[in-house]
Amino acid sequence: MDTPLHIAIVGTRFMGRAHSNAYCQVGRYFDLPAEPIRHVACGRDAEHLAAFAQRFGWEHTETDWRTVVDRDDVDLIDISTPNATHAPIALEAARAGKHLLCEKPMAMNADEARRMYEAAEEAGVVHMMIFNYRFVPALALARRMIEAGKIGRVFHFNAVYYQDWLVDPSFPIVWRHDADAAGTGAHGDMNAHIVDLARHLVGEFEAVNGVQETFIKERPLASGSGTGTVSTDDATSFLARFRNGAHGSFIATRLATGRKNYLRLEIFGSEGALVFNLERLNELAYFSRSDEAGAQGFRTILVTESAHPYIDRWWPPGHIIGWEHTFIHQISRLVEGASQGKQVVPDFYDGLRCQQVLDAVVESADTGEWISIADP
Amino acid sequence: MDTPLHIAIVGTRFMGRAHSNAYCQVGRYFDLPAEPIRHVACGRDAEHLAAFAQRFGWEHTETDWRTVVDRDDVDLIDISTPNATHAPIALEAARAGKHLLCEKPMAMNADEARRMYEAAEEAGVVHMMIFNYRFVPALALARRMIEAGKIGRVFHFNAVYYQDWLVDPSFPIVWRHDADAAGTGAHGDMNAHIVDLARHLVGEFEAVNGVQETFIKERPLASGSGTGTVSTDDATSFLARFRNGAHGSFIATRLATGRKNYLRLEIFGSEGALVFNLERLNELAYFSRSDEAGAQGFRTILVTESAHPYIDRWWPPGHIIGWEHTFIHQISRLVEGASQGKQVVPDFYDGLRCQQVLDAVVESADTGEWISIADP
Amino acid sequence: MDTPLHIAIVGTRFMGRAHSNAYCQVGRYFDLPAEPIRHVACGRDAEHLAAFAQRFGWEHTETDWRTVVDRDDVDLIDISTPNATHAPIALEAARAGKHLLCEKPMAMNADEARRMYEAAEEAGVVHMMIFNYRFVPALALARRMIEAGKIGRVFHFNAVYYQDWLVDPSFPIVWRHDADAAGTGAHGDMNAHIVDLARHLVGEFEAVNGVQETFIKERPLASGSGTGTVSTDDATSFLARFRNGAHGSFIATRLATGRKNYLRLEIFGSEGALVFNLERLNELAYFSRSDEAGAQGFRTILVTESAHPYIDRWWPPGHIIGWEHTFIHQISRLVEGASQGKQVVPDFYDGLRCQQVLDAVVESADTGEWISIADP
Amino acid sequence: MDTPLHIAIVGTRFMGRAHSNAYCQVGRYFDLPAEPIRHVACGRDAEHLAAFAQRFGWEHTETDWRTVVDRDDVDLIDISTPNATHAPIALEAARAGKHLLCEKPMAMNADEARRMYEAAEEAGVVHMMIFNYRFVPALALARRMIEAGKIGRVFHFNAVYYQDWLVDPSFPIVWRHDADAAGTGAHGDMNAHIVDLARHLVGEFEAVNGVQETFIKERPLASGSGTGTVSTDDATSFLARFRNGAHGSFIATRLATGRKNYLRLEIFGSEGALVFNLERLNELAYFSRSDEAGAQGFRTILVTESAHPYIDRWWPPGHIIGWEHTFIHQISRLVEGASQGKQVVPDFYDGLRCQQVLDAVVESADTGEWISIADP
Repeated sequence: MDTPLHIAIVGTRFMGRAHSNAYCQVGRYFDLPAEPIRHVACGRDAEHLAAFAQRFGWEHTETDWRTVVDRDDVDLIDISTPNATHAPIALEAARAGKHLLCEKPMAMNADEARRMYEAAEEAGVVHMMIFNYRFVPALALARRMIEAGKIGRVFHFNAVYYQDWLVDPSFPIVWRHDADAAGTGAHGDMNAHIVDLARHLVGEFEAVNGVQETFIKERPLASGSGTGTVSTDDATSFLARFRNGAHGSFIATRLATGRKNYLRLEIFGSEGALVFNLERLNELAYFSRSDEAGAQGFRTILVTESAHPYIDRWWPPGHIIGWEHTFIHQISRLVEGASQGKQVVPDFYDGLRCQQVLDAVVESADTGEWISIADP
Repeated sequence: MDTPLHIAIVGTRFMGRAHSNAYCQVGRYFDLPAEPIRHVACGRDAEHLAAFAQRFGWEHTETDWRTVVDRDDVDLIDISTPNATHAPIALEAARAGKHLLCEKPMAMNADEARRMYEAAEEAGVVHMMIFNYRFVPALALARRMIEAGKIGRVFHFNAVYYQDWLVDPSFPIVWRHDADAAGTGAHGDMNAHIVDLARHLVGEFEAVNGVQETFIKERPLASGSGTGTVSTDDATSFLARFRNGAHGSFIATRLATGRKNYLRLEIFGSEGALVFNLERLNELAYFSRSDEAGAQGFRTILVTESAHPYIDRWWPPGHIIGWEHTFIHQISRLVEGASQGKQVVPDFYDGLRCQQVLDAVVESADTGEWISIADP
Repeated sequence: MDTPLHIAIVGTRFMGRAHSNAYCQVGRYFDLPAEPIRHVACGRDAEHLAAFAQRFGWEHTETDWRTVVDRDDVDLIDISTPNATHAPIALEAARAGKHLLCEKPMAMNADEARRMYEAAEEAGVVHMMIFNYRFVPALALARRMIEAGKIGRVFHFNAVYYQDWLVDPSFPIVWRHDADAAGTGAHGDMNAHIVDLARHLVGEFEAVNGVQETFIKERPLASGSGTGTVSTDDATSFLARFRNGAHGSFIATRLATGRKNYLRLEIFGSEGALVFNLERLNELAYFSRSDEAGAQGFRTILVTESAHPYIDRWWPPGHIIGWEHTFIHQISRLVEGASQGKQVVPDFYDGLRCQQVLDAVVESADTGEWISIADP
Repeated sequence: MDTPLHIAIVGTRFMGRAHSNAYCQVGRYFDLPAEPIRHVACGRDAEHLAAFAQRFGWEHTETDWRTVVDRDDVDLIDISTPNATHAPIALEAARAGKHLLCEKPMAMNADEARRMYEAAEEAGVVHMMIFNYRFVPALALARRMIEAGKIGRVFHFNAVYYQDWLVDPSFPIVWRHDADAAGTGAHGDMNAHIVDLARHLVGEFEAVNGVQETFIKERPLASGSGTGTVSTDDATSFLARFRNGAHGSFIATRLATGRKNYLRLEIFGSEGALVFNLERLNELAYFSRSDEAGAQGFRTILVTESAHPYIDRWWPPGHIIGWEHTFIHQISRLVEGASQGKQVVPDFYDGLRCQQVLDAVVESADTGEWISIADP
């Protein structure tokens, strides 16, 4: 781990913390070809930034992302900012020859995403999308099992992503309620995850048809007086057909009272089935039609054994890991790729394809019609 | 329980057995104003019919339903036959002044259903639809809690009905695969239940948009040689908007590998949430935002206490009841209504409204567009 | 089913109802060599008895069990009375040549139980103990799997039986609190079940060591004024060694707040494990060390398929049955045995051996020492 | 966080890694009065030690713990070695005036533990036992709820600790099978945890009575040829009475096939109940008799909200944490105490009392009699 890889992170809030934790931890648990250096942290609030940088050991700070992009001593830029800034940062950073890590949703729309993808490809940099749930051991195991044919031909991919932090009508307006900053609400934030997992586990989408709703249209301003109008969706649901003939159902909502971070997948195939729930992310339920008659049933695999993806890096069986570990796993791949100039997935192509699906759902919600997804 | 109520049942297979069991048991557990007499059983296969009648204590048998309708000694006709025969039997029976109990789905389409409803109303007979899941104690409790405002304004009603008996491609063609006999497949059989529960628990539908699929299009003939074409759906999914602003998601499929009779409801409201699964029908999960902060969570109510609907008729707490009990509960209401000439619900109006929704989903699947549900 | 088998039931309360239901239902679902006739019901409260008899179709009533024993038109006596009366009734009935069905616990102590067993054997009558949980399909399946070697050599049999109806200190004194009528409290009522299941699933006990407690020693009298002293245990726990080397842990308590009828077994063996919970009695969890590495886990078998014990008599997969069905299953065996003069299990020998274990636990609780269980 | 606290860790295997991770992470998530410096790592295998030290950032290494104790630049010694060395290290370190952190079980027996406690007290150093499961947020919440009277008077504390890594008879002999190195097997390793939790949540023990077993007595030597005799227990179970009148049941086994790290607590009280399972450590099940009649049930609290203990340091609701976080929480307390010279709990007194219980169980298993636990 001789070579250093100098990271600059833009964004110091929730995702900034989660990514920083991963940069701190990854080298202790993965044998990496390079050492990720927490080099520059960038945020607009200087006071918050200083505390953040000190806490997570970022060596330098900047308050303008353009300055970060211009620095010669940065190898990779981690874009952990609100959605509207992904494209401007990524485009500039690609032009500056920086490797790229980008939070989801990739962009405000597929056109932006396509430009980002093309810019990164043209610049020849390594580009990766944060779709960290691919790196949940249980879902990496699901992928492995699907590829091995354990569930056969997929008939149904039914996914929900439930949170409930907007049920409280006194929860104030934040940037995620502003279409100019966020693009969409639950849709881009939460459906982006399950759309990516669908592509990862089943394949490309053929067409979608959905509906969006903002149940609570006015919320108090964070300033404390007055209210503002919510311009993003509280909930977006859609049906899908996949190119391989499977059917899909997707629901993302921030008004699923009682569910905190409940991302559930139910995948039914000709030979078996898989069920997953992010609130119990160390578990994967698996049904096999190959099990002996009379003794069939969904088995709960506690995905904490050394035979399971990523787990040999951690603890003995039954000693569960947490949500934050998904970033450590993903960033181990990022460091491998960026330090060796090898493209890794999920990349900006995956981000673009996900964005196409998200856009098509929005269009279908506007028109009431099925929207096909073309190749990008 | 002096007055007798003479029942004739048409249909002696799965539903014939389940209803017969209920007629046998209901008087032992409910205090009824009349005694339901197992008077006539009707089926086309005389040998099977004789065995059925003897097993369940039906006093007489007939092989033609028209003869049953003509009998003066029959008060109520229980229609437990394949879907295509519901309307002809019901229309004739109504004309003959018989009270009516009809299995779901009510009819082949809403026009048929409307004629059945109008005929029953004109005849002044009591008419009831078998939507037995309203009579699951946990769901009767759910209704009670919703009416008491426990979950507030409903945002989401997400329902699935999963079975897997058609995953096996060697499962032969039966009447349920034949559009002429069944109308639809999973849709009418399974969505009928969750559409009715949605109306019961949330309210009327505004509009729907769905998709249908027959994943396995050819199946072996029951005769053993050759194959036939499946003309009904294996799976039907749809999105819905309710008149009160709630959103709905519905999935019915017979290819949900590993799920045997898994009807799950997830109802999220402004004050709480309810979750139910038919495979654990003695349980209802309930989340309340009124619970003390720091101690909130979904609680699993084991719906086996005397405070719960219907349970005072059965056993002490924790001694669970089975699926068949739902018919006993429903038929206790039927006997009360029919013997006293009082209309009870769910009735043919409910059947008609359910059929309208089912029809609209089929139309949406054909056109790719949202279909509104008008008043009948 | 030509031959009639004339049943007399003594006891018309909880067990009287559950047994009566089984006599009503058994012939509809099982093909029996004889028809069980609900011939005589016996109880001391004439008014209650009349209502009971009418509800369940008992043809005759008696208020003194001695009269029942003397009747020539009775083939089998079902003893569903409080514990202290089991022996007197059984001994007289055996002398009168009646077949016998007896509720658990068999007797007030092993001496009584031995006399009952010997009397029945000498009389040459069929004698059966109600240990109805052997007839839960999931537990019949567990037995089948253990016999087939699916879990190998058993290391641990850990059982609890949790109820909570005595947590409320205002719950009044009933016969179960009276050592003269009940012998013991939770111990005989609840440990009897799990001791029998242990013998059924693992084998004979070697020695036990336990502790008993009455947490709430005074309770209001049912009359409404004053209190009485509880002379039976609220809870009894014990450790056990089995003759085959397995270890056991048993807990029975009526103060397990929140648990209504929660009988849980956890059986760990060299090749696999089984877990069961009576509140979800249609399910059996099974872990197999033979499953593929990386895909091992406890699988929840929904024991509702025709391949499962007893289920071919009932409904399609996923349509669950209730607690009461266990009696129907057991009584189908009783009718087979009694009508053909063939002994069936569990019989009075099983009741005696269970009683020996119960007695040994009481002795160990008194002495603080391990008590060995000899052959009877 | 100006003041440094220089840590030396003795032991570089499983616990060495888990503690090291905590020293790395604690300062990022907790605001500490001192900075824990990973100063010296000590292990006997120099090659392994060097890799360990580099991975976790320990500045110096030593291969003899006596040298570590003699170093002036060490403030605190973390004893993460096999059990037999706890006392020698702790006694020397206390004499050298070092603060102490000690893994469980504290010692080979209560005499050793008492000497360690007295030595630490005399030296005036801060001494802490690693009972990290007190620091699971769900169990910290359980403690808070019990203290607030939520479950009232405790009747039952039933605990199991199930692992299965010794089911495989080809698993070789390690130090944990050697009574000279480990003292006991499952007992000291696993019962130590649940005994401490019992004291923490219920109170002091009155008396115990238990049984121990080594089911697989010979195992292959790690060298690959030949076998050795296992001199520690595979499983130890015991019953307990607490001083406050509660009853307890404890089972620790490494032959619970299918369970990987399954520590379950079931605590039943006069007002409510709590259930916990370490394999789902982010959840706490809670039953309250104060909930409205008809809507009572065990609720699953997903202990990931800022209102819950420790969680405000981590992620938003529903984003679960892992097993390793328990050490971070505990070590935040250790750093607070050691840096300020304030005693924190669990301390060596807790370790001693736990050891007394463990010893008493062993004695009861030898004698077959109940053993009382005196004040130390």
